[in-house]
Parts: sequence; structure tokens; C-alpha cells
Amino acid sequence: MKIDILSLFPEMFHGVFQSSILKKAHEADAFQYNFVNFRDYTDNKHNKVDDYPYGGGAGMVLKPQPIFDAVEAIEKNTSQKPRVILMCPQGETYSQKKAEELAKEEHLIFICGHYEGYDERIRTELVTDEISIGDYVLTGGELGAMVVIDSVVRLLPDVLGNEDSAVQDSFSTGLLEHPHFTRPADFRGLKVPDVLLSGNHAHIEEWRKKEALKRTYFRRQDLLQNLQLTENEKKWIKEWETSQENS
Amino acid sequence: MKIDILSLFPEMFHGVFQSSILKKAHEADAFQYNFVNFRDYTDNKHNKVDDYPYGGGAGMVLKPQPIFDAVEAIEKNTSQKPRVILMCPQGETYSQKKAEELAKEEHLIFICGHYEGYDERIRTELVTDEISIGDYVLTGGELGAMVVIDSVVRLLPDVLGNEDSAVQDSFSTGLLEHPHFTRPADFRGLKVPDVLLSGNHAHIEEWRKKEALKRTYFRRQDLLQNLQLTENEKKWIKEWETSQENS
Repeated sequence: MKIDILSLFPEMFHGVFQSSILKKAHEADAFQYNFVNFRDYTDNKHNKVDDYPYGGGAGMVLKPQPIFDAVEAIEKNTSQKPRVILMCPQGETYSQKKAEELAKEEHLIFICGHYEGYDERIRTELVTDEISIGDYVLTGGELGAMVVIDSVVRLLPDVLGNEDSAVQDSFSTGLLEHPHFTRPADFRGLKVPDVLLSGNHAHIEEWRKKEALKRTYFRRQDLLQNLQLTENEKKWIKEWETSQENS
Repeated sequence: MKIDILSLFPEMFHGVFQSSILKKAHEADAFQYNFVNFRDYTDNKHNKVDDYPYGGGAGMVLKPQPIFDAVEAIEKNTSQKPRVILMCPQGETYSQKKAEELAKEEHLIFICGHYEGYDERIRTELVTDEISIGDYVLTGGELGAMVVIDSVVRLLPDVLGNEDSAVQDSFSTGLLEHPHFTRPADFRGLKVPDVLLSGNHAHIEEWRKKEALKRTYFRRQDLLQNLQLTENEKKWIKEWETSQENS
């Protein structure tokens, strides 16, 4: 996978790209990345990339010209049209499903604004995807791009070992993960549930399923709407509803 | 604000902490940060911080002892109890409201796992907040912690200049932002809406309100549920509903 990143702050990425999975994936050539400082493309004689908004108001707006020219310079050298992703709070809320979709692409371009808004013509004419990583305000699109890149690259073939990839399960089952415990069995009087020490795999499996559902029920009922529940699972939920009403 | 970060990968933070707003805020002493490699606290003779899960299964689990000891070493030197934040997919979904809440605190501790799950006793006994930045799987808690820290620090007094702070509006009005345009008025035949060039501030204001609502209606109807709409706004929405049905 090829990744181009348009940013005025490429140095923000160094720590993340040079550690852990992204470092390994890059060394194994699972993905290549390239930074484009779009200031290099401005035709403004003072090297500016932003300007005041038409209609007045606070804040600056990124001009269309430097972004269009920077993206088109990248696309000139590609045979297939890349996905052009704008990181912005107005975008589609990012999800694991979107990560899986992007992991199938060969070439991604990320556009990261910083402080400023984007001229609307960038959205309507240049961009294929607008992505928001969540409903909060960040200083720029760079952290969002890192989040998307980390979540996508770890899905590429051969990037994760078997042991790591199990951890992915969190969102692929549609439920939050069940509780985990490791040694010691008694830590300062806090004990591991007996069932996990029992060696009875059917019981352990049942306990984990129930706890995953319970955690999801109490924390994220919105996730349950997309699931087909078994009769047994519906019965558990009824019990938790009743215990809440009585407490 | 004081921030302690428990991580096995502190080098991941360097690019983000040494750029832009976080760099400025740190230089202005608006926040101080400190990394704790919790491997330094393990009593395991092979320096391990994780172990196999009780009950079997793939993946490793962070042991309670190194995390408890690392957090308690920090808390020993503080008068007020800090917020202890666990970055994890099972946590509460992060929001601008939560950022505003955390920005009032004096001391935050972040616990960042990497690959592994957390022993449940860390959650139940040590942690005050479990936070997920969104419904996608990341390699570790580090990127999530950076996202939370960026969004919180920019809310601290005197960190943002007036010009920057206007950009915050995205989620504080409850609507997505209206489109922005800057020069040129005609870019490759793509024109700025006449109203923005009109100089009529009442019309511009009305256009922006309507476009913000329109964008929110078409992209994020979930955000509208929390808003009190005026009669005028309800009428606009009716129009968009009708135009969708007829198209």
C-alpha cells in the first residue's frame, strides 16, 4: 500500500511511524509513505496556503490551489485513481468497517488541515472520502490520519503475527470484549473468578460470552441493535433489566 | 495541568508533543508531562509485564502488579487524587463534552496498553475513567492518549489564540460546520456562492445557519436529536425530506 500525506507538520508523524507495528510494516515493505508539504505548491508570492473566509468571520481557510496542485502532482504518477481522504470533523464517523474497506486499496492520499477550515471546493471536487475519527475537536488532521493509518496498516497481509491478531476481536464480534485475567490468581485479595481456573472449557466459553454481552449491555446498548441475539442471550438481558429496576 | 503517561512506547509521543499547539503549550508551562515505562516497576525476574490469560485463548494480558505499582508511585507524590484514565476499546466513547470535563482537572494519568488486554482488576480497582476514541481497533492506547491530550490541552486557558479558538465551534453548536470559501472567487470555473460576496451580513448569517443544518441533516442526523430546532429550521428540514422523497 502506498500512502501520501499532505501536511504542514510532517514531523508530527515521526514518533508513531518509527515505532511498533508501523515501523515493522514499513521495514517489511507492507506500506510506503511519503509526506507532501503543500506549501511547496502554493502560487502565492508570500508562500501562504490560507486566506480569510468570504463572508467574514474568525478563522482562516485553506485555499484550493495548493491542495489541488499537490494532489494532482501525486496522481500524475499513478495509473489507478487513489482514494483522497480529507480528515475533518464534518466527515463520516470512522469505524472498523471503514478500516477494512480502506485496507483493500492500493493507494491512499490524506489531506490534513491544521487550525484552518477547508475551502469547500476541495471537498466537492478533489476528495473521495471525508473522515472524522470522533466527535471532538483536534488541532489538526494529523492525529486523525495517524489513527486511520495505524488501524488500516495492521489489517494488511502479514503485518500482524497470529498472537497479536486475536486482539482485533473487539469490534469484529459486534460486542465489547469480555474481562481478561492473568496471574496472580489472588492479587491483594482481588481474586480471579473460579470458572477461569476450573479447566472446564465449555463453562469458560459460556462465562466469556455472557460477560461480553453484559459489558456491552451496560456500556454500549447502541451496539446491540445490529446483532441477532439468541433466546439465551435475550433471557440474560431480561435478568439484567429486572435487576436494574429493582436496584 | 500535570500529565503522566504509562507506556512501553514513549517514543511514539515525541513528534506530536514536540510540534504545534502541544509544543507551545508545554513551553508556556500550560501542561507538564512525564512518561513512565511501567516495565521499570515489574517484580518479574524476566522483566515481563504480561502473561497468558486464565481460561486460555490467544493474546496476552497486562499483569496488575506493574501497573498498580507505577500508578501508586505517582500518587504518592500528589495531594489530590488524579484521574486515572485507561485507553481501551471497551471504554466510554470520547466526546467534546468529556474533553471539557477533563480540561478542568489538575492531574491526569493515562494507562496505555499495547497489543495486550488489561487484567480486569486494573479496571475495577485502579482506574477512574475508561475511554475509547472510537469504534475501531488500534495497535495500542498511545494514539488514543495523544488524541485525548491534544483535545484537552487546547482547551486550557491561554493555549489557543483568539483566531484559532474560533475553529472549535464544530461541536459546541451541536451542528457540523457550514461550508467555508476563500479566494479566488472563481477557481477553475468553481464559484463561491453569491451570497458570501454580497456584503449583506444578515443574509450571510442565514445562509451559514441553513448550510450547517443541511450538512448535519444529510450526514449526521443523530446529532439533531439533542437540539431544540426553531420553526424555521423545522420547515427547512421538511423541504429536504420532500426533495429526497422526490429524487
